[in-house]
Order: sequence, then C-alpha cells, then structure tokens
Amino acid sequence: MNRIMRLQQQVEYIREIDKLKSVLRQSLLMDASRQENDAEHTWHLAVMAVLLQEYAKEPLSDMTRILKMLLIHDIVEIDAGDTFAYDEKGYLDKREREERAANRIFGLLPLDQKEEMLELWEEFESERTAESRYAAAIDRLQPLLHNYYTEGAAWRKHGVKSSQVLARISKLSEVVPELHEYASGLIHDAVLKGYLAE
Amino acid sequence: MNRIMRLQQQVEYIREIDKLKSVLRQSLLMDASRQENDAEHTWHLAVMAVLLQEYAKEPLSDMTRILKMLLIHDIVEIDAGDTFAYDEKGYLDKREREERAANRIFGLLPLDQKEEMLELWEEFESERTAESRYAAAIDRLQPLLHNYYTEGAAWRKHGVKSSQVLARISKLSEVVPELHEYASGLIHDAVLKGYLAE
Repeated sequence: MNRIMRLQQQVEYIREIDKLKSVLRQSLLMDASRQENDAEHTWHLAVMAVLLQEYAKEPLSDMTRILKMLLIHDIVEIDAGDTFAYDEKGYLDKREREERAANRIFGLLPLDQKEEMLELWEEFESERTAESRYAAAIDRLQPLLHNYYTEGAAWRKHGVKSSQVLARISKLSEVVPELHEYASGLIHDAVLKGYLAE
Repeated sequence: MNRIMRLQQQVEYIREIDKLKSVLRQSLLMDASRQENDAEHTWHLAVMAVLLQEYAKEPLSDMTRILKMLLIHDIVEIDAGDTFAYDEKGYLDKREREERAANRIFGLLPLDQKEEMLELWEEFESERTAESRYAAAIDRLQPLLHNYYTEGAAWRKHGVKSSQVLARISKLSEVVPELHEYASGLIHDAVLKGYLAE
C-alpha cells in the first residue's frame, strides 16, 4: 500500500472517532451542568492514570500502554452506545455489540494499526495484565468522583444502591488498595448525605 | 506530608480540571453540531499522536512524555481561556495569563507533581525537544482537519486567510514533512472550495 493511501486511512479514522465527543454518559460534569461525553471522560481518565500510578500495588512497567488502552477503550461506543454500569440488561449483549464496533471502527485503519488497536482493546477488556487492571480501576474510580460531587445525580436517577457501587469498585482493593479505601469512604459518606440509597 | 493529605490534593486537582470540559474552542465538531471543548480536543490529539508517530522526522524516544505533555497542555486555559490561533491581540498577554494559571492549577497538586506538570508544560510551550515539537505539530494539525471538514466554519467566522493558516503550519515541514505536505494540500483545496479566503 502506498504512503498516501495509508495516511488517508489514518485521517479517515481520526475523522470517524470525532463522534466519540457526541456519545453521552450517565455521569454529569462535576458542576452538574450537563452529561459528560466519552471523549472528555477519556481525557480525564488518562490524566488520572498518570497522577495516581503510585497507588498501584503491582509494578506498572508500561505507562504508554496504559494510556493507549485508555485512549481507545470507549471508541467502540460510537456504534455500541454507552452501557450504564448498572444496566444488567444492557450487559447481556454488550460484548457482541462492542466486538462488531471494534472491527468496523479500528478496521478503518491500516491493518497493522487495526491489529494493534484490537489488541489494546482486548487487553483492556480482559484485565489480564497489571497495566489493564490498573487502567480499568481508574475507569471505575472516575464516575464515582463525578457522582459524589454531583450529589449522586446518576445514582439517584437510576435508583442505584450502595451495595452495587461497592461491588463495582471491589476489584480496586487488589489493584489500588489505598484508592479502594478512599472510594469506600466516599460511598459511605454519600449514603450518609443521602446521595446514594443504602 | 501524610498519605491521606497527598491523595486529597490529587483528588482536588482531578476535580478542578473537570472545568476543562467547559472551555470552548473556536473549532466546531466535525459534524458542525457545536463548538469543541478543550478536554475532548486533548483526547483527540493524544490519539493522533499515537497513530501518526511514523511521520516524525526526528526519532521520538519517549511516547509517554509526548502523551503527558498533550494531556496537560491546555489545562491553563481553565483560567486563561482559549486564545484563538489567529487572535494577535490575545497573544500579547497570553504567556503571562497562562503562567499565572499554571501556578495556580498545578499548585493544587503535591509539590513533586506540581513541578513535574510545570516542567511538562514548559517543555511543550518551548518546543525545545523532539517530543515537544512533535506534540505541538499535532496540536496545529487537528484544528486544520476540523476546519476543513466543517467547510471552514471557524476560518470563515473570523475572516482567516490561507496565508495565515500556511504560516501556522509551516513548522510542520521540519517536524512531520509528509503531514505538512498533506496539510498544505488541504489548505489549497479549502481555498478552491471557498472554505478559506486566499
């Protein structure tokens, strides 16, 4: 394949993923002004991953890989939509919808880059490496902060219970124990303040 | 300083920078539905930096550093606002406004992380390393794509001329020559199509 066609494919992908800025999540911005979108959520996660690496229990040998995984982990939602963390029905066919999306969207790229992106996405989803477990932990922590600081906006809207949120962050205890302790404290405080049902 | 206070400072910073999602840029999303914000712009740049590194003329030895610089390069705009690339007046006191902002916002972090962030921001601004030159080149390329695909929305709104856009991307010829050639082609095409004044 010639160089120009390769660049054309890369630009086509860069153009396509602009749509991630229009995929809305259940979380509100911390000032509660509107729903957050996947692109800005992803940026926030990447900054957090850089800042909070000292809390990882297992050594993290590859920060670039962590950032790459985070940067692309939600791109499948352009086609598959955002599945709310507590939507049990949505989770039934989540994997199938997202795999189709990954193949279509990463498939816009030159083959070597498509394969790299699929591999990064699989690694993130499988949580089979220290890097992917850490990235996934950050992805669970961020919406908790958003919910806490918006007085439980998305929790209250969907009638989420504290036991569900505690279950959702339970993996953090192995991966980032101090952040797990901190997050558990926020959940208990949120119950006391009436942001979250017991 | 104890560990809990350190984490409190980090969370305070994570909360503060949520405001970057509300700093609007002149560029529209590629579907022209609304203005882009700094947080989603930054995510887009980071993805592009990963994908387009093969075009860098100088060897890039540290992708993590490139991504870190990009992730934080616009955070100062929470206080200083976005200065449009072609706003000559705005550029007069841009540096001063942004330095104050950097000190306040990065100053929310523990001292070691504040210093790391200030150093990354200085490196990005100074373009004194191959990594920062590459990051800055990507930051110049992305708005051009947005303008091109929105039929020159921000260019037309502000009466920008092709000579200004060509000057803005001229540095790309040293840093990412093939992307410079591609971008120049888009600019010429934009003039032909009436998106951009000659």
